[in-house]
Amino acid sequence: MKYYYIGVDLGGTNVRVAKVNEMGHIEQVIKEATEISQGVEHVIDKIVRMIKSIDHYEACEGIGMGVPGPVDTVHGVMNLATNLPGFENYPLCRTISERTGLKTYADNDVNVACLAESYHGAGKEYPICYYVTLSTGIGGAFTVNHQLVSGMTGYAGEIANIVIDRNREKVNYLNIGAVENEASGTAITRKGKAAFGDQIKHAGMVFDLAKEGDETAKRIVDEVCYDLALMFADIAHVVNPHIFIVGGGMMKSKDVFFDQVIETFKTLVHVGMRSTIFAEAQLEEPGLVGAAMLPMSKSE
Amino acid sequence: MKYYYIGVDLGGTNVRVAKVNEMGHIEQVIKEATEISQGVEHVIDKIVRMIKSIDHYEACEGIGMGVPGPVDTVHGVMNLATNLPGFENYPLCRTISERTGLKTYADNDVNVACLAESYHGAGKEYPICYYVTLSTGIGGAFTVNHQLVSGMTGYAGEIANIVIDRNREKVNYLNIGAVENEASGTAITRKGKAAFGDQIKHAGMVFDLAKEGDETAKRIVDEVCYDLALMFADIAHVVNPHIFIVGGGMMKSKDVFFDQVIETFKTLVHVGMRSTIFAEAQLEEPGLVGAAMLPMSKSE
Repeated sequence: MKYYYIGVDLGGTNVRVAKVNEMGHIEQVIKEATEISQGVEHVIDKIVRMIKSIDHYEACEGIGMGVPGPVDTVHGVMNLATNLPGFENYPLCRTISERTGLKTYADNDVNVACLAESYHGAGKEYPICYYVTLSTGIGGAFTVNHQLVSGMTGYAGEIANIVIDRNREKVNYLNIGAVENEASGTAITRKGKAAFGDQIKHAGMVFDLAKEGDETAKRIVDEVCYDLALMFADIAHVVNPHIFIVGGGMMKSKDVFFDQVIETFKTLVHVGMRSTIFAEAQLEEPGLVGAAMLPMSKSE
Repeated sequence: MKYYYIGVDLGGTNVRVAKVNEMGHIEQVIKEATEISQGVEHVIDKIVRMIKSIDHYEACEGIGMGVPGPVDTVHGVMNLATNLPGFENYPLCRTISERTGLKTYADNDVNVACLAESYHGAGKEYPICYYVTLSTGIGGAFTVNHQLVSGMTGYAGEIANIVIDRNREKVNYLNIGAVENEASGTAITRKGKAAFGDQIKHAGMVFDLAKEGDETAKRIVDEVCYDLALMFADIAHVVNPHIFIVGGGMMKSKDVFFDQVIETFKTLVHVGMRSTIFAEAQLEEPGLVGAAMLPMSKSE
């Protein structure tokens, strides 16, 4: 007998609903514009309609939702919903569950991506997976025995705010020296613009210059590698995961920086931690698959 | 029906064996010198004899051992045994289990103390407890739903090595700016000696001077508070625990520094994390009780 789950990937721009089997295979997927400007109830109506259009939706084991922001997973409520005005403190899971008749769970999009990787991707053989996304921002999440650990208020994995060097400049609301302000795609672009001017449009251009041998770009990349390695080391001393699963747009330039991060990491941890595995995220649709895995993980 | 467990607190100097009930109450306790100089087998014989001298030991549900060093909890083997030469890689749990007929588990002493506090102490109502001991050194451990998360190689909670300021001086094998070298009892004593000379014998004397209004001592304490707050913030961004449970000898001076650490912590985390609870460890015998709780936590 096969079990099926419904995954909802609710973003500020689009919402997607999929039917996913227990092996993480997507059997059916529907996509619509979120249209958050038309209000919360409009979006809820849309999600319910999309779920009910899934073949035999009522025979699925449950619904999981990935949402952009920290979630109170006990009450199924978003604690913060910058990109989905009106969803903050809205009884999301209760409403969807009442209107579909299916148990409903929610967690933030990085957490569900981590869950997907822990079940069906790079982490499937490892008890403790720490997922890190290196993109315009930096996010994280972790699982213990395929269960997400979301934290008291859904902030587990808010590693963007880890201070890797307190002697930097204030950039924004994050801590001075927060890793996101020093080693994210946005930070690398900022540092690239400062060094090379406005022709630098994204982090990939800085990585390309470093690859071509430009000394200034190499210095930027060296600093970024050290900053990231220290972030990974801090996480490792707190959790000692079996594997770091790394995703996000910066990994397009992984050949320029990833090995250097790993080698530097080894110099910043105890001998017994140097075998920590670093792997690239594997799944094409971690958001949808991971959302669908939420009810499966809760039933274990 | 009451359930009983056997807890073993194996230290470099003494070994204690106790019968503990499921409520964490110690019913019987025996203590002997470890005599590690006489070899591993001598110590193992001693532990087995002590266990067998517990009333109705054979009716207990299992044995848990707290040991000084990181443990491979899957195989029940110490990964590092600085204070117990010969125990590194010795099949500890298998041997004790074979010779007593009881299931046997082991974990490091800080981890079992955390487990005790999560079951029967300050953390008993909280899903995620992060235990921090501030003493001559700094250690940590954490539980999720009363299960210890020991990590890939038992290094979860090795927070001593978290870098709180990379612009300090090299002190020892730990990272430059590792929190243990900047804010532990040993570090405070070192800084006190540098400021006041050799009349400073321990950290408590620096705290006392600060309490009396000495400006130099206050500066040392201010720096220590900031360093500790940043360590707690780093941990919180990784795990977002419901509660930090803080123990260790430095807490004797908690009136001088603990509130300041908590207030500074709040300035270093997201708004949604500021309600994280900070509590003092409560139990008198966390090592023995926590060891005894190991088999209980594994059976849940």
